[in-house]
Amino acid sequence: MNIPQREVRSITYPASHVFRGALLGTGQISVYHLRAWSQIKGVEIVALANRTIEKALARADEFGISPDHVYSDHRELLEGEDLDFVDIATLPDVHRVQVEDAAAQGVNVLCQKPMAPSMEDAQAMVEACDHAGVLFSINENWRWRTWYRDLKRLVEEGAVGKPKYIRIVRHTNLTVPRPGESLPEFFKDQPYIMNMERLILYEWGIHLIDVMRFLFGEVNWVFARMDRTSPISIGEDRAYITMDVGGVNCLVDISWGSIGVEKRESQLEQVTLEGNQGSIELLPDEADMLRISNHEGSRTQPAFTGTSDDAYQASYTAAQAHFIGCLREGREPETAARDNIRTLGAMFASYESAAENNVIHLQNADS
Amino acid sequence: MNIPQREVRSITYPASHVFRGALLGTGQISVYHLRAWSQIKGVEIVALANRTIEKALARADEFGISPDHVYSDHRELLEGEDLDFVDIATLPDVHRVQVEDAAAQGVNVLCQKPMAPSMEDAQAMVEACDHAGVLFSINENWRWRTWYRDLKRLVEEGAVGKPKYIRIVRHTNLTVPRPGESLPEFFKDQPYIMNMERLILYEWGIHLIDVMRFLFGEVNWVFARMDRTSPISIGEDRAYITMDVGGVNCLVDISWGSIGVEKRESQLEQVTLEGNQGSIELLPDEADMLRISNHEGSRTQPAFTGTSDDAYQASYTAAQAHFIGCLREGREPETAARDNIRTLGAMFASYESAAENNVIHLQNADS
Repeated sequence: MNIPQREVRSITYPASHVFRGALLGTGQISVYHLRAWSQIKGVEIVALANRTIEKALARADEFGISPDHVYSDHRELLEGEDLDFVDIATLPDVHRVQVEDAAAQGVNVLCQKPMAPSMEDAQAMVEACDHAGVLFSINENWRWRTWYRDLKRLVEEGAVGKPKYIRIVRHTNLTVPRPGESLPEFFKDQPYIMNMERLILYEWGIHLIDVMRFLFGEVNWVFARMDRTSPISIGEDRAYITMDVGGVNCLVDISWGSIGVEKRESQLEQVTLEGNQGSIELLPDEADMLRISNHEGSRTQPAFTGTSDDAYQASYTAAQAHFIGCLREGREPETAARDNIRTLGAMFASYESAAENNVIHLQNADS
Repeated sequence: MNIPQREVRSITYPASHVFRGALLGTGQISVYHLRAWSQIKGVEIVALANRTIEKALARADEFGISPDHVYSDHRELLEGEDLDFVDIATLPDVHRVQVEDAAAQGVNVLCQKPMAPSMEDAQAMVEACDHAGVLFSINENWRWRTWYRDLKRLVEEGAVGKPKYIRIVRHTNLTVPRPGESLPEFFKDQPYIMNMERLILYEWGIHLIDVMRFLFGEVNWVFARMDRTSPISIGEDRAYITMDVGGVNCLVDISWGSIGVEKRESQLEQVTLEGNQGSIELLPDEADMLRISNHEGSRTQPAFTGTSDDAYQASYTAAQAHFIGCLREGREPETAARDNIRTLGAMFASYESAAENNVIHLQNADS
């Protein structure tokens, strides 16, 4: 992987500056983005764009944005508005053109995962933003979930000694379409998913690869298996990945087609993290508790405060607030695109591994 | 793998025949063997041998065997006794010589897993028994555990549709020695374990490979990782194996050094088996229940009847009774050594995979 060199931007903004942003893409997920922006001080969302303009107009109405600033074309939006940043929440296939167009206008970019449908696109996007001198970060909210922050802090405090192993499991039920049954919500809301050749890992599991990188460092190699349960949607709805991340054995085991396995709805994955001195577990089936066990004994605490919905929204807000903080202070975001391209690379390597039934080693030239 | 051809023995015994057996090796596990023999009709254990004769004498006393029939050398036993079979419960390193010596005397053999420390030894053992025309079976009791029998029956009845995936997890706590602490029971009883270069998979996890083969057929390939938590014992105390067994994605995830993870003692592994129509779970943390979930709903039942100790003993009794039944009727045991050599091969392939960090394909020439 040829990762572009880090370029630290030197622009900073005064504390009083109110960032003018626009949202590209007003699909299902945009509600969480807009709620988050409404909760972050010093940010105003002034415009929206969406291919189907009716959706954008409805979203604008919902969030008090004037219909005069709603567009069906992102280029018209970029030309018609005076912006500090765009928040890109469209499908990956259009990320590259939208990022390059924003960069060409000198507009900073926060872009939804997955960054791009290929490494070539992703590298071109990073280079375009570097060339334009704009900040380019990926909206990777999972590493902002409070329980993963807690996990990282606990590991750094030595709660488990040297980390050896982590297993993250999430098997859900009836998320994929089945013959003779009505479409699950997830597919009703996002019908394009039915025809995605890359499905559960590309659309969702990439979050867990990023979490592993957040916790332990760089991915040295991956070995992955993909499988499909639904006879209707065409992409993989199961993925089992073994990774070496910073010397830790990492297992990611996800499925959307596990009939009867999921017992309750939770924002939490089943996580077992073990070190040579103790372990930490996230327990969705035990009232969303986090359990820390070591030689001092075992204690549990809630994995998050408030409702599960609050926790879900909070990770968006934290991820977006981080972007604004970095933009204001001229800092490199931890989810900078030049870093996140490694998460993307590990995701593509997983598909390659599954296709070739072999271990794929990653070159992290910059690490 | 060059697997010897099947030779069906034609010898049968009348229903009234009482099989005269001897037990080689009177260590910790021998209690379960002897209890099992005492429960199987038409069997009499007439002699014992053990390198440390005091242990054999104590065992003989415990099970009502005359001290005149206790030996420190298995050859003296084989020469001094009139036997139908030997039950070999010694360490793997001496299996070959003991099996070959028994075969040379025309004595049938039931031998503890792992069969041998190398494939070469195992093949030589199978050939020696074929040449002598004696039955040679491996005492693989896990596939006789009632819950794995139930799992197989349920799958065959179509409870989950087409099987896609199975995950078997067993992480236990404080099973490996730790600095500044007294030795765990397991090591006190079997101190040689401390210096075994191959540990958790060789000594214990091989059962789970055999269970996978019992459930789904032949192992097509393995990818394995090994790790160690104990700074004292030298072998791996963690193993994570991905296998394709008869087209089913199989994950075996075992550890002896997981501090705080094990919540209760149970004979049950955590098992999640999923097909395209449903799932079956074994739930050690939920009162040892077996749960079947499919379109007809979800139901639970106890994974076994009686106490956990009863269930443990019962799998020995069932495995040994199967051997006697096959011996009596001239049938091929399902755990015949010529079959079990494939379980052994998948186990060695796992070590090779971990050492080379690569996928190892198995040749099952006979399948």
